[in-house]
Amino acid sequence: MAERLPVAVLGANGRMGSEAVKAVESAPDMELVAALGRNDALEAIVDAGARYVVDLTVPDATERNVRFAVEHGIHAVVGTTGWTGERLDVLRTLLAEHPGVGVLIAPNFALGSVLATAFAAKASRYFESVEIVELHHPDKVDAPSGTAVRTAQLIAANRTEVGLGGSPDATEKQLEGARGADVDGVRVHAVRLRGLVAHQEVLLGGPGEQLTIRHDSFDRASFMPGVLLGVRAVAEHPGLTVGLDGYLDLGL
Amino acid sequence: MAERLPVAVLGANGRMGSEAVKAVESAPDMELVAALGRNDALEAIVDAGARYVVDLTVPDATERNVRFAVEHGIHAVVGTTGWTGERLDVLRTLLAEHPGVGVLIAPNFALGSVLATAFAAKASRYFESVEIVELHHPDKVDAPSGTAVRTAQLIAANRTEVGLGGSPDATEKQLEGARGADVDGVRVHAVRLRGLVAHQEVLLGGPGEQLTIRHDSFDRASFMPGVLLGVRAVAEHPGLTVGLDGYLDLGL
Amino acid sequence: MAERLPVAVLGANGRMGSEAVKAVESAPDMELVAALGRNDALEAIVDAGARYVVDLTVPDATERNVRFAVEHGIHAVVGTTGWTGERLDVLRTLLAEHPGVGVLIAPNFALGSVLATAFAAKASRYFESVEIVELHHPDKVDAPSGTAVRTAQLIAANRTEVGLGGSPDATEKQLEGARGADVDGVRVHAVRLRGLVAHQEVLLGGPGEQLTIRHDSFDRASFMPGVLLGVRAVAEHPGLTVGLDGYLDLGL
Amino acid sequence: MAERLPVAVLGANGRMGSEAVKAVESAPDMELVAALGRNDALEAIVDAGARYVVDLTVPDATERNVRFAVEHGIHAVVGTTGWTGERLDVLRTLLAEHPGVGVLIAPNFALGSVLATAFAAKASRYFESVEIVELHHPDKVDAPSGTAVRTAQLIAANRTEVGLGGSPDATEKQLEGARGADVDGVRVHAVRLRGLVAHQEVLLGGPGEQLTIRHDSFDRASFMPGVLLGVRAVAEHPGLTVGLDGYLDLGL
Repeated sequence: MAERLPVAVLGANGRMGSEAVKAVESAPDMELVAALGRNDALEAIVDAGARYVVDLTVPDATERNVRFAVEHGIHAVVGTTGWTGERLDVLRTLLAEHPGVGVLIAPNFALGSVLATAFAAKASRYFESVEIVELHHPDKVDAPSGTAVRTAQLIAANRTEVGLGGSPDATEKQLEGARGADVDGVRVHAVRLRGLVAHQEVLLGGPGEQLTIRHDSFDRASFMPGVLLGVRAVAEHPGLTVGLDGYLDLGL
Repeated sequence: MAERLPVAVLGANGRMGSEAVKAVESAPDMELVAALGRNDALEAIVDAGARYVVDLTVPDATERNVRFAVEHGIHAVVGTTGWTGERLDVLRTLLAEHPGVGVLIAPNFALGSVLATAFAAKASRYFESVEIVELHHPDKVDAPSGTAVRTAQLIAANRTEVGLGGSPDATEKQLEGARGADVDGVRVHAVRLRGLVAHQEVLLGGPGEQLTIRHDSFDRASFMPGVLLGVRAVAEHPGLTVGLDGYLDLGL
Repeated sequence: MAERLPVAVLGANGRMGSEAVKAVESAPDMELVAALGRNDALEAIVDAGARYVVDLTVPDATERNVRFAVEHGIHAVVGTTGWTGERLDVLRTLLAEHPGVGVLIAPNFALGSVLATAFAAKASRYFESVEIVELHHPDKVDAPSGTAVRTAQLIAANRTEVGLGGSPDATEKQLEGARGADVDGVRVHAVRLRGLVAHQEVLLGGPGEQLTIRHDSFDRASFMPGVLLGVRAVAEHPGLTVGLDGYLDLGL
Repeated sequence: MAERLPVAVLGANGRMGSEAVKAVESAPDMELVAALGRNDALEAIVDAGARYVVDLTVPDATERNVRFAVEHGIHAVVGTTGWTGERLDVLRTLLAEHPGVGVLIAPNFALGSVLATAFAAKASRYFESVEIVELHHPDKVDAPSGTAVRTAQLIAANRTEVGLGGSPDATEKQLEGARGADVDGVRVHAVRLRGLVAHQEVLLGGPGEQLTIRHDSFDRASFMPGVLLGVRAVAEHPGLTVGLDGYLDLGL
């Protein structure tokens, strides 16, 4: 019988961290060997024999946590934000001194969202028109969502690569804002509606046909399959990987 | 056996008119007794024994056509635009002198669209949030569509009536246009996509639930069931009716 | 200033009941005067001065609870199942002896769901084709859902009333089950998908157009606006009302 | 300036063929050098200097047409059905004798449909649940559609490959047909609705999230961008390619 992967969760009392604790405990091929909160000493993960850490802490703590893991030969799966280009460079240098150790840093662990973005970007190379509609709860303060902006940028880059420009649009007369925001030439519309969580639709159109790729995120639980997939794959991806799509067999 | 309704179509060579000719010919309870083009004399409809006219001509001709029909005791179903408030008043006066004659003037004969608007307006009285997304082919010159603007106005009026204001929205930071156009406090988003025809979605949200009412118009043929329904019902509605919803048993 | 409505919740420790307790407490025009669990004596609601009870208990208890309320002149809003035709008849007789007392018994308090069903039934009178797709989490044991069956029956009754039969269907060769279940001549398809809660789509089609009415229930919270609406309106509806649509200004 | 590709269309008077004639004529990088009907002699395409043929004929004629093209060093893009495994083997042998000649045989030239199927198959490796809903006009005689069956089979093969079985389903009590048809363990539901053309939705669900990939085919015109893409790429793909996805840069 295969041995179970020894996993430690950092930030175990946070909203995401506590979900991760439950997810690791429920995974038949993993063993939760440590669950650390804000004030616990990192040494505990070594003492517990962890070979993997899941870091779901805060921007101020994550860099120190990951450095500690790498220096102790422990693979890291990181969902915390705050990783600037500079921080990533420092980490790459450190990983070069620790070959064999893998680190995955991902802004989004929802498999469906990662796949939806990858598919939309690829498909946008083949369609005359593309627009994005994102829909969220009305307490969100920014519009459009970060995910929608990144999706639009990726789509724009793909279209430029194949020589496609913006989508056709004969609008001459519009009420201000009707045609949405312009992100690198891609129109993005943001709906805010009580009852919703986080949803995104990429609409692609050509003569006589439409392709729609929609992702609905109903619950924080949606991140956990991606976190577990990260833990299972991180040892086979030494060095730094940014974005869960790097682990998916997308070939995109 | 019931006699078939004798119907004349005006504007029979236009895009809508030629569809109407086909629709009337296919209707088992109707008989097409005349089909007039731009230069044909109106007297032909009297000679042909028409009891109903379907007017699908142009703004310049429609008023004269309808006046002629009413003066000859012929019921009229009118899809032509250009009926200002003043013109409608003149027509009402004329109809008062011809009791028993019915005229239906409708900007939209697609049953689904008429129902969708009526349902959305009614439902908006019961939901915290409501927004509209309309989607059309990219050759359309105005945004949002006239139907979307009318729907938003009707929704706003319904919400005011029950003391509901705008939908909640915590947006503090937005890319210009992301949150759509503001029509009487209702957000309206206009998507333009190759391959589409004319589509509209009204999204209503409350705690833990969403109601979506969507209409898709794929083809001009969608107007014909409404035109036929108009012909069948116009004699039972003497005087002027504006809007097909006046003939639908909506009770709304 | 208007006095707040004194409300008691029965079944206050259950899943629905505890949501109701929170909802009543949050409503600015209501006061929670009692919250009773399984073993609490009903007399407490009289002592507390309740003028309204919300019953979210179990089939075995609800009849006794409602009888007690009516006999003490207290209006009742009931979400508990188990009300057979016989039980309803007994209740009607009791209410006849207590004019002025109102009771609302509703199988479904989600406003969106009630509206969606009413709209779909009405719209089905005007379309050639109609089918239902319901989508739920994969732990549900029955297919299709009770709501989908009731919607299909209501649609079938409406179509019969206007002389419309089943929807057109040229299928000659099918894999068993592909065309869904047949409920009074209406096709119903049941999707089961991890991540979903409770969703239903009624699709209506005519020449060149489609009307779609969709309801998404994400959370038990979706029932509470309907419960509060029931409390606010029950006193104005003496006698027995079955179904929340009886309180909605639908005119359908 | 680049020379235009000399293209011949076979089956030019058929429904698909006449669309192809228009599409080739409109393509700025192509020249229509011949358009043959049922009784025209194939030699005309050689005389006209065609380097590419588009075959949109009938199962009885297509094999002879393609053989003729290959033997004359002309690349072929084929949308005609009827290519059995045996016929394909014969063609492969012929192509081995004519290195440098390319043939593309595709059952479906709608880019959106090809992409949707590829994406759905790939995504199904990462989700607990997957089901298919296909929707067509009510004059269709088979249910589910061939595309839906192929999509389900491809999904099943992908899931088997990664050790995923069927989707979870606790259904104990069902009305016959409610849960759809079973195609290799994937549930497929077929909706038939007046007004529709050809539509397909693949629904994928995991804890707290849903991914939906939908394709709408409104018009035969949707096949033409794929046909043109085939013509442009066939010379770079010597030998036989089955399925347009072989030409798309999907890396899937």
